[in-house]
Amino acid sequence: MALVLKISGRVFDNEELVLKYAEILNKLPGRIAVVAGGGEVARRYIAVARKGGASNTFQDLLGIYASRLNALLLISLLKDAYAKVPRNMEEFLEAWGRSRIVVTGGFQPGQSTATVAALVAEAVRAAALLNAANIDAVYSDDPRKNPNATRLSELKYDEFERILRSSNLPGGYELIDTWAVSILKRSCITTYIFDGRTPEAIEAVVRGENPGSKITC
Amino acid sequence: MALVLKISGRVFDNEELVLKYAEILNKLPGRIAVVAGGGEVARRYIAVARKGGASNTFQDLLGIYASRLNALLLISLLKDAYAKVPRNMEEFLEAWGRSRIVVTGGFQPGQSTATVAALVAEAVRAAALLNAANIDAVYSDDPRKNPNATRLSELKYDEFERILRSSNLPGGYELIDTWAVSILKRSCITTYIFDGRTPEAIEAVVRGENPGSKITC
Amino acid sequence: MALVLKISGRVFDNEELVLKYAEILNKLPGRIAVVAGGGEVARRYIAVARKGGASNTFQDLLGIYASRLNALLLISLLKDAYAKVPRNMEEFLEAWGRSRIVVTGGFQPGQSTATVAALVAEAVRAAALLNAANIDAVYSDDPRKNPNATRLSELKYDEFERILRSSNLPGGYELIDTWAVSILKRSCITTYIFDGRTPEAIEAVVRGENPGSKITC
Amino acid sequence: MALVLKISGRVFDNEELVLKYAEILNKLPGRIAVVAGGGEVARRYIAVARKGGASNTFQDLLGIYASRLNALLLISLLKDAYAKVPRNMEEFLEAWGRSRIVVTGGFQPGQSTATVAALVAEAVRAAALLNAANIDAVYSDDPRKNPNATRLSELKYDEFERILRSSNLPGGYELIDTWAVSILKRSCITTYIFDGRTPEAIEAVVRGENPGSKITC
Amino acid sequence: MALVLKISGRVFDNEELVLKYAEILNKLPGRIAVVAGGGEVARRYIAVARKGGASNTFQDLLGIYASRLNALLLISLLKDAYAKVPRNMEEFLEAWGRSRIVVTGGFQPGQSTATVAALVAEAVRAAALLNAANIDAVYSDDPRKNPNATRLSELKYDEFERILRSSNLPGGYELIDTWAVSILKRSCITTYIFDGRTPEAIEAVVRGENPGSKITC
Amino acid sequence: MALVLKISGRVFDNEELVLKYAEILNKLPGRIAVVAGGGEVARRYIAVARKGGASNTFQDLLGIYASRLNALLLISLLKDAYAKVPRNMEEFLEAWGRSRIVVTGGFQPGQSTATVAALVAEAVRAAALLNAANIDAVYSDDPRKNPNATRLSELKYDEFERILRSSNLPGGYELIDTWAVSILKRSCITTYIFDGRTPEAIEAVVRGENPGSKITC
Repeated sequence: MALVLKISGRVFDNEELVLKYAEILNKLPGRIAVVAGGGEVARRYIAVARKGGASNTFQDLLGIYASRLNALLLISLLKDAYAKVPRNMEEFLEAWGRSRIVVTGGFQPGQSTATVAALVAEAVRAAALLNAANIDAVYSDDPRKNPNATRLSELKYDEFERILRSSNLPGGYELIDTWAVSILKRSCITTYIFDGRTPEAIEAVVRGENPGSKITC
Repeated sequence: MALVLKISGRVFDNEELVLKYAEILNKLPGRIAVVAGGGEVARRYIAVARKGGASNTFQDLLGIYASRLNALLLISLLKDAYAKVPRNMEEFLEAWGRSRIVVTGGFQPGQSTATVAALVAEAVRAAALLNAANIDAVYSDDPRKNPNATRLSELKYDEFERILRSSNLPGGYELIDTWAVSILKRSCITTYIFDGRTPEAIEAVVRGENPGSKITC
Repeated sequence: MALVLKISGRVFDNEELVLKYAEILNKLPGRIAVVAGGGEVARRYIAVARKGGASNTFQDLLGIYASRLNALLLISLLKDAYAKVPRNMEEFLEAWGRSRIVVTGGFQPGQSTATVAALVAEAVRAAALLNAANIDAVYSDDPRKNPNATRLSELKYDEFERILRSSNLPGGYELIDTWAVSILKRSCITTYIFDGRTPEAIEAVVRGENPGSKITC
Repeated sequence: MALVLKISGRVFDNEELVLKYAEILNKLPGRIAVVAGGGEVARRYIAVARKGGASNTFQDLLGIYASRLNALLLISLLKDAYAKVPRNMEEFLEAWGRSRIVVTGGFQPGQSTATVAALVAEAVRAAALLNAANIDAVYSDDPRKNPNATRLSELKYDEFERILRSSNLPGGYELIDTWAVSILKRSCITTYIFDGRTPEAIEAVVRGENPGSKITC
Repeated sequence: MALVLKISGRVFDNEELVLKYAEILNKLPGRIAVVAGGGEVARRYIAVARKGGASNTFQDLLGIYASRLNALLLISLLKDAYAKVPRNMEEFLEAWGRSRIVVTGGFQPGQSTATVAALVAEAVRAAALLNAANIDAVYSDDPRKNPNATRLSELKYDEFERILRSSNLPGGYELIDTWAVSILKRSCITTYIFDGRTPEAIEAVVRGENPGSKITC
Repeated sequence: MALVLKISGRVFDNEELVLKYAEILNKLPGRIAVVAGGGEVARRYIAVARKGGASNTFQDLLGIYASRLNALLLISLLKDAYAKVPRNMEEFLEAWGRSRIVVTGGFQPGQSTATVAALVAEAVRAAALLNAANIDAVYSDDPRKNPNATRLSELKYDEFERILRSSNLPGGYELIDTWAVSILKRSCITTYIFDGRTPEAIEAVVRGENPGSKITC
């Protein structure tokens, strides 16, 4: 069974972390689809574009190009990854099956890389989606705001959706968008959320552990 | 300023209606992007695929292929439409600007053609999105269920989102998905919703009338 | 050695039959190229386009899009088929060799899917072309018109061409076009024609039987 | 109204003739689609491939590549031609409309460039197809074999088909294949056949003259 | 006559400068091809890749992806630029002619964006190549090393090549590679080199002035 | 480890030689990338284009198309070659890994096929580049001009560059361009240069012999 790994864009702002991810992916057995986020480069380019009056379409495209740059960096460090960054689902399906690892970035405007990861997980009928996030687990509320927020090791998609919706207020914490969740839920794909700064968590999940939160349908 | 026209897939199940849309688009001045839905053909193919155990990805792709068939039918009847059906935003942007009319269908799995229409409206900085729907206007509740539902001629996106969310229950009425709405809202694009069986409504909107509901930010 | 299977578009108008073909292809060993016809969906869209004054080019393209929809439906039901529908010979050659099964539809205007099947058979140096047709065998004349028409179990391409030419009159029966035959003949590819409603015939041919007609050079 | 010009591959074996065609096309007003044949280069490469046991598919592809080389040579000499050689009908349709002149070669195996020209003429709803051939007109029989063959200035497609079929014997003269003729006939496109060594004939046709044979439906 | 503008990657490290370039290009009349360099983002990604043992091919590809991100940023700020970043000469030729401005980045490994600019200048038969560089003009030697280096307002390509070759030592200053120069020389395209931090220099060149160095054949 | 074989265009002017190369490549074990030159066909088409005033860009493109025709001829004769001719590095990388042998021609204007071979060698991290040249080895000077030129069996890239530069005068001999050499040098790829008329030299190199010159870093 294949795995899908979503790597937060922020990971790519840290050189050592990128090399560590490559090292782990080179050792990991089985087939893996990786989806890279945009990170600091994306944010910086989007800011300039917005300042100059660019449309939302182009702001999003800049984020997508930045995520593809991150994807290519990872490809350059892997031993048996597909040599190109697929730009949409049809290209991804074409790439998948020819190489052990396929790395992609964003697909199109108006869509997060988390949603790309969910769609990819559905397309490869993934055993699980591993989300290397900016937070170490799912909490009942934003832990940076609410000291009473409790850490949730295991939860169902219905509960996850409720949490995301209630915290989707100004100040709410961005973990994954509801569109991505609805896709994972409709195909019953288990999601693991863990801290992106600890790439060893990937190996933990493969060993059957739960280094952060595990979400099931 | 360009217009975007979203045509419900059901329109394509009615031969006379398709010819009427083509007639009106051939007379309409200005630049137009059209997004075709999947309709009965989509539903039938998806049903067979599901019965045979196909993944959600392929079920969605079948709907996309069916919507592209509808798009091509419309192209074949138009005088100055772009000759191909763009398959993603990058292809759409390439097509746009070369022909007065560009007709597209679905873009990718996990995404409605309503969302494609919203993304296209954003990309062309459209004056308005005209939604030729399966209902004649927005109602405060599902009119087929609730006899007290009131017809709303003008409303704001915030109110529209509230209605969509509350009716997003089993039995709720499907008009447009919340992802499409969030895109239209972030770019402040006016949406007109009218009955897809009355293509003359397009001309009414162009004349400044409101044949169904008008949603603004 | 590879096989090429041409499936009449009419098969796709019958849900059960489609599922049965998928089941057989999933069990069949060896490499297989499948070419899907357009069927009822093609006919219906072409009729609307013709009524609206569309060119022959677009009428043919609608038939091609419909055949691709049929091809994708089959792909969605197969375990190791190539995930995309090749759109011309160059794309087909690229796909061939990467998956055990490649499914395609029409290639271009002015060309039948029977001709596509013949070209594909030539390209993969197929052992045989299996034509799942709208008739159960080749007859000396149109059996629906001439009660004296005799069923031909084995025949040569020269004789086949003579029959096709003589029956190529108003009212003649359409089985395969002469262009397809001339390609099969020049590359000496054996063709089996059998009733498309009996997919088991594929297994019969593989076992060395002749369920309908066998044409050789 | 657009014109389609089919240039026999042999023209490209003659440097002066190629330059003369470019000169005339650069002066000619209106929109023009040009289809280049393969010529001596095609024949030579196909011969080597056949000697080495290559399939018919690759033999045909070599002819197509050679015709694209001829097409590019013409493009390099034209002032407002589309810069690329379209490789199939979908690419041709994309190119058409963006430049005054589009030059193409062969499209796919098993198909002559005469057929490409017929399909292109249909696609652009051409006023006429100008066939710069290896012969100066249509004759009632092969003039190189039969001294009584009479030159036909005007004829109908039905008569043309009869002549082509009867001379389609070993030793018959190759002018245009019957598949191309059936396409031209179904769309009622007038064909002019004239000697490819006299490019001035193009201007004659545009002036309303008939320098060789004129075939109508 | 068209202009080609090569913008040093370092310009894209400065937000204000990028906006200023966009402003000037939006006002400039005529047709313009722009080639963006890679800048700081390119350098940073290449450094990580090298550290992780990536091949030169991938190191170069990362630089190319970074330059395409810069190109897209500029496109997002321009009013009538082609919406995509061409990835090779064939795509560039396809884009050119459809929009007033086409912006590209690197084309392929082993090749500088200066060379891309030279090839593009040749392809569009440019009146001149404007090189917005990291230095304000050509000097007889590296001005940062040799205080006696003299500023050269006008020079010939032969002299320019001599200077580049002699300074192509460890410590020599990188202005433009000799491959780019050999292309500009063979097609006799005038090059203007000026300080990339002063985008107004573009308008000066258009007015007939020489804000830095002018190189002719 | 993979090998890269650069075949001089002149080889393709000799039918027997082409068949011999195919025979040897069909027997050779391991993975091989082949780069075909343009030869006589290229020279002839470029000459016509130049006479008609075509740009350097199109002259180069004609040479590239001719080299692709040569590449396809070789593909048609090989048993397990990739069926298409990659047109740039991104397409090459996509093809590589799917077939034992990938054959390519030129990539883009302003670049020799020797440079393509060097870039390809870098991309596949080739054990060696085998250059089937128009000369049997590297000489200290042009042997056709200088009777005292000595044959060099082994040399370093530094020495090779010195020789190429000094002979890069009118009348100097064209063996490989300095751009190609700089790429081979930066990635430390061993080059073997031998007489293209003796394809057996390929087997000699594989056996560990040095049939011409061996260049190392």
